[in-house]
Amino acid sequence: MTSSPPGGARDTIGQGIRRARNARGRTLEQVSEEIGVSPATLSLIERDKVSVTRARLKEIAAALGADPAELGWGTDPEHEAQLRVEPESERPHVLGAAIECFTRRGYHGTSMREIAQAGHMSVAGVYHYYESKQQMLVSALEPAMVELRDAVVAAGQRHPEDEPEKRFAAMIEVLAIFHITERDIAFLGGSELRSLEGANRERVVQLRRGVQHLVDAEAQAAAAAGAFANPDILFASRMVVNMCVSLARWYDPEGPVGPDDAVANAVAYALAVMKSTAVGA
Amino acid sequence: MTSSPPGGARDTIGQGIRRARNARGRTLEQVSEEIGVSPATLSLIERDKVSVTRARLKEIAAALGADPAELGWGTDPEHEAQLRVEPESERPHVLGAAIECFTRRGYHGTSMREIAQAGHMSVAGVYHYYESKQQMLVSALEPAMVELRDAVVAAGQRHPEDEPEKRFAAMIEVLAIFHITERDIAFLGGSELRSLEGANRERVVQLRRGVQHLVDAEAQAAAAAGAFANPDILFASRMVVNMCVSLARWYDPEGPVGPDDAVANAVAYALAVMKSTAVGA
Repeated sequence: MTSSPPGGARDTIGQGIRRARNARGRTLEQVSEEIGVSPATLSLIERDKVSVTRARLKEIAAALGADPAELGWGTDPEHEAQLRVEPESERPHVLGAAIECFTRRGYHGTSMREIAQAGHMSVAGVYHYYESKQQMLVSALEPAMVELRDAVVAAGQRHPEDEPEKRFAAMIEVLAIFHITERDIAFLGGSELRSLEGANRERVVQLRRGVQHLVDAEAQAAAAAGAFANPDILFASRMVVNMCVSLARWYDPEGPVGPDDAVANAVAYALAVMKSTAVGA
Repeated sequence: MTSSPPGGARDTIGQGIRRARNARGRTLEQVSEEIGVSPATLSLIERDKVSVTRARLKEIAAALGADPAELGWGTDPEHEAQLRVEPESERPHVLGAAIECFTRRGYHGTSMREIAQAGHMSVAGVYHYYESKQQMLVSALEPAMVELRDAVVAAGQRHPEDEPEKRFAAMIEVLAIFHITERDIAFLGGSELRSLEGANRERVVQLRRGVQHLVDAEAQAAAAAGAFANPDILFASRMVVNMCVSLARWYDPEGPVGPDDAVANAVAYALAVMKSTAVGA
């Protein structure tokens, strides 16, 4: 057993996990159950489609009985860059409780007392980490939107500029993956944007617009290159982005269409829409 | 000038309005501004795509300086059936104020006092019409979902059973029109379904599911007939329904794509998705 693949090319974190899991003859289902995530999520981690925290990586290594060095991380600066920023102490736990409350009763319907109860701590404890309910909402939404924006940019850049259709498809793929794996945040992004105040709202709205504009720009480039026939290119681009966004509201990863196929379908449907010629009124 | 078209066929309400407006050389923009709706909405009314209240019809007649008899309604039982049930007294006004509050601050974040203030009446006045906030929410959502369900059924029935693709397209058309014209209700249907309690929630959820199932059934019939190639037909059907639903959140009737074209596009995109063959993972 070696800690890196033959030929000298280094594993990504996802490839390292998949290699170690396969070497042990363990299924996605077995390992994912042990670490308490869905098989779909573990599959996305192994395909480097979602980033993971250091804590989650340690759990995976433990479940596989693997040395972190064998899995190939902890020593490589590129791998460090792949990891999500390590959350500090109880902060994410408090924020998780707040997200749960906001999702269940709405932002205005949730009190700091209820967040404290959901997080099994005192109200003072909550205020130790967040100065206000508003700060918690923006802390839930803004980093997620930054992460999505950065992932969409990176996806586009994996293909050359003169292949806008591939860049567009890669962006749609990231959008579909995000809305399949981050449903709570995506739900709040749809229903509680109105509850963000002043500059907070402006920043998050700009981030959302930024994602749409990234997709729009590639759609327009693909149309200019003759790949997309749709005459209302920006309207179509809004429709396909929102089709992906809707996955967060209704898609069930345990249903008949698995997450990998759901993502592939979303990309195929988006291309079908962009290549369609509307019938006109 | 006659009150009915040549040849003896009777006007629908929408045709009656359009005929009278054209006879007076008035534009959609002029008349819609006078009665305080968007040109898009008036266009949908004239195409019999949305039903209107008796009060709205009187406004239109007044704006055109027309006798209701000339416009051909008020005497014909079929026209009566086309009209929305007349709202009683202040009830719809109170409900409108509640919908506005729910949309702005969320259901749990809204008090009966705030609804009373928004409706310029006393709290006791609100309770005269509705026994609870919950009753107001269900009174906003349930009739809208019933109206949508009935419109989807009627749209399908406009085409013979052996033409499932046409039936499917007609249903998608109605979905797109509903979400373009009923954005507040559609937003609440997405964000406040969780706030409905017990049997209220069950009924509205069943109505929503019913709409999806109506579309699903025609999609499956069209697939069986060889018209739709998509291998994940129910997944695709969910995606296109949600694409139409999203119109309520982002579509601007005053933007570059007018309502008629937006509806036609939605139908064309839905058919493109249903006919597409997914690339697979």
